Amino acid sequence: MFAPVYLDHNATTAADPAVVEAMLPYLSGQFGNASSGHEYGRAARRAIDQARSQVAEAVGAHASEVVFTSGGSEANNLFIKGAAACLKPGVVAVSAIEHPCVIKPAEQLGKRGWTVRQLTVDGDGRVDENNFAAVMALKPKIVSVMLANNETGVVQDIECLAERARSVGAYFHTDAVQAVGKIGVDFRRLNAAGVCALSLSAHKIGGPKGAAALVLDKRVELEPLIAGGGHERGLRSGTENVAAIVGFGVACELAAQRRIAVARRLLTLRVRLERGLLGLGATLFSQAVERLPNTVYFAFPELDGDTLVGKLDRDGYATASGAACSSANPESSHVLRAMGVTPDVARGAVRASLGGSNTQEQIDGFLSTLQATVSRLQRLTAMAV
Amino acid sequence: MFAPVYLDHNATTAADPAVVEAMLPYLSGQFGNASSGHEYGRAARRAIDQARSQVAEAVGAHASEVVFTSGGSEANNLFIKGAAACLKPGVVAVSAIEHPCVIKPAEQLGKRGWTVRQLTVDGDGRVDENNFAAVMALKPKIVSVMLANNETGVVQDIECLAERARSVGAYFHTDAVQAVGKIGVDFRRLNAAGVCALSLSAHKIGGPKGAAALVLDKRVELEPLIAGGGHERGLRSGTENVAAIVGFGVACELAAQRRIAVARRLLTLRVRLERGLLGLGATLFSQAVERLPNTVYFAFPELDGDTLVGKLDRDGYATASGAACSSANPESSHVLRAMGVTPDVARGAVRASLGGSNTQEQIDGFLSTLQATVSRLQRLTAMAV
Repeated sequence: MFAPVYLDHNATTAADPAVVEAMLPYLSGQFGNASSGHEYGRAARRAIDQARSQVAEAVGAHASEVVFTSGGSEANNLFIKGAAACLKPGVVAVSAIEHPCVIKPAEQLGKRGWTVRQLTVDGDGRVDENNFAAVMALKPKIVSVMLANNETGVVQDIECLAERARSVGAYFHTDAVQAVGKIGVDFRRLNAAGVCALSLSAHKIGGPKGAAALVLDKRVELEPLIAGGGHERGLRSGTENVAAIVGFGVACELAAQRRIAVARRLLTLRVRLERGLLGLGATLFSQAVERLPNTVYFAFPELDGDTLVGKLDRDGYATASGAACSSANPESSHVLRAMGVTPDVARGAVRASLGGSNTQEQIDGFLSTLQATVSRLQRLTAMAV
Repeated sequence: MFAPVYLDHNATTAADPAVVEAMLPYLSGQFGNASSGHEYGRAARRAIDQARSQVAEAVGAHASEVVFTSGGSEANNLFIKGAAACLKPGVVAVSAIEHPCVIKPAEQLGKRGWTVRQLTVDGDGRVDENNFAAVMALKPKIVSVMLANNETGVVQDIECLAERARSVGAYFHTDAVQAVGKIGVDFRRLNAAGVCALSLSAHKIGGPKGAAALVLDKRVELEPLIAGGGHERGLRSGTENVAAIVGFGVACELAAQRRIAVARRLLTLRVRLERGLLGLGATLFSQAVERLPNTVYFAFPELDGDTLVGKLDRDGYATASGAACSSANPESSHVLRAMGVTPDVARGAVRASLGGSNTQEQIDGFLSTLQATVSRLQRLTAMAV
């Protein structure tokens, strides 16, 4: 059995043992279809109802506002394309650092009569104030800005942005997939500021892959992406993935209970890691602004990020270069490009994203391994030059 | 623990113990994101590759033709809407007895410039020859006819229909969700006859909920329903549900191995059940035509199907009235309506769908319970009149 030290929690997390235990009955004995009119079906329906309350509670929403989907990508596509299908084409504005599952749906709208505007960010990865104001003056109908970025961990001032978007009549959506469980996320408060919809995902917070949610202000009309039997108030048809939804509910409950204590621990580890990285001569991205307590994004001069990640992997440390979700894409990170980072620096980007199981010993071990690896690679690079 | 006799396998099935066992490692220790460039990620990728081969093998396809989705409803929506998005609007033809997750997407196309034509069926639930020919004369661009119906179990002559659809230049899709595992399904052969795409789902064949596939002729261009990181050859973005996909692969392998033996056993049980039902005075739907070996759809004069299903549930037998997937819909079955069954008879419809674990004793017990229940309900009905 392999067991490298896992420093890639923004890509995915292991399901908590309590999550797996809660899921198991729904894979075997209580396997009913929640739409069935017999006891197997009713047991499945009760389990989904409970999970819906747990998910809602964790993000300060009402259970009736939770629309279950198969993943964060589906939730983001559902909002962007679903809302657009109920509107006349206009301007859709998404930040330049969004996950591809927000940027691509916006581009699809571009082929259907919509005008796509990217909201630029500053060198730290925060949405640019002046550009945001200029785009709002175009009266966009849909605006999407993520709560926290998957690569840099940078947290946006969503309430402030949403208020300004609402003042011009836009629907405002925020991808909170990376934020939930790491910082406080309160849909009631965000909704009061003008956020209409928020996406979150189970597998980023100790839940299983295969369950996620769009939390949606019910006044917003959406056309379903998956139409059919009319599940999820007609917004998402298809037999519910009961076991994964149950696991999602438990993961949300645990994440909410543990968040403050875990975040404090991770921030201590992150600071230790950052000090070490700076000592080794690394560049830290977005160092000056508010970030998730678990995310460190760095580069070493002259070193290729992919090469470093591969070397660290062989030495027993799992990290990421750029975003795992689009590793099929060989280009340098679109997030760093949007921040104005030069391609030669961006090519070196490595992300370490911490989780509840990481320890100080692991961070120290990672730093020593990194020191040895970096100096060896830098010697090789120097020789090649 | 409740454990009524389960006679609702067309709604969903329990995951096979071997399926659950294969899934477990991917919920805990081997939890990687298959896009990650480290060992956790590569382990996940290998598991998905293996499952892709198992799924392909079970339906006579190439692994490269398998596009994983979160469910059958998503697979059907992906084909109908994804193919349409790459074509100029024209005629889309779907049979009147399709699952709502085919009918509804077609209706959505109707709002985008497409003309929707329903293919009618005869009194037995088979696609009507003359009507099919008339609709083909309209040169539809997309045609979808299910391989086997979820309510009646009726099997269509898909090769013959696909050949005729191809001759007018249509893309032909078949929803094989109910057919796979119960009758032989060979995509190579179907593809040679003109079938471009086929949907199947894990949870109907002893796999978990949350995994399914669209098997797709690669010459057909599709726009993704879920756009983003570019997973599944760009046709379906989103972190793969590794555990569910692994379970799907194992379920396909087991279903293929066991199909002939299981189908023979189920047919014997079905015939026994049908004889008993006829003896009790039931009407059997689609009795005269080729049906799945596990499906019996019946009604008793003057009795309401929902009432009977509820009574049977309390007596320890799980059955369905109409299709479970749209039990939110109080209307009588659209399948029976399309077959010309009068509303008063259709209202009585009850489906018993058998699975590998059912026994002769269970069928006999079901028939005795039914006899007692039906005569009591009929007495009550007679008194009320």
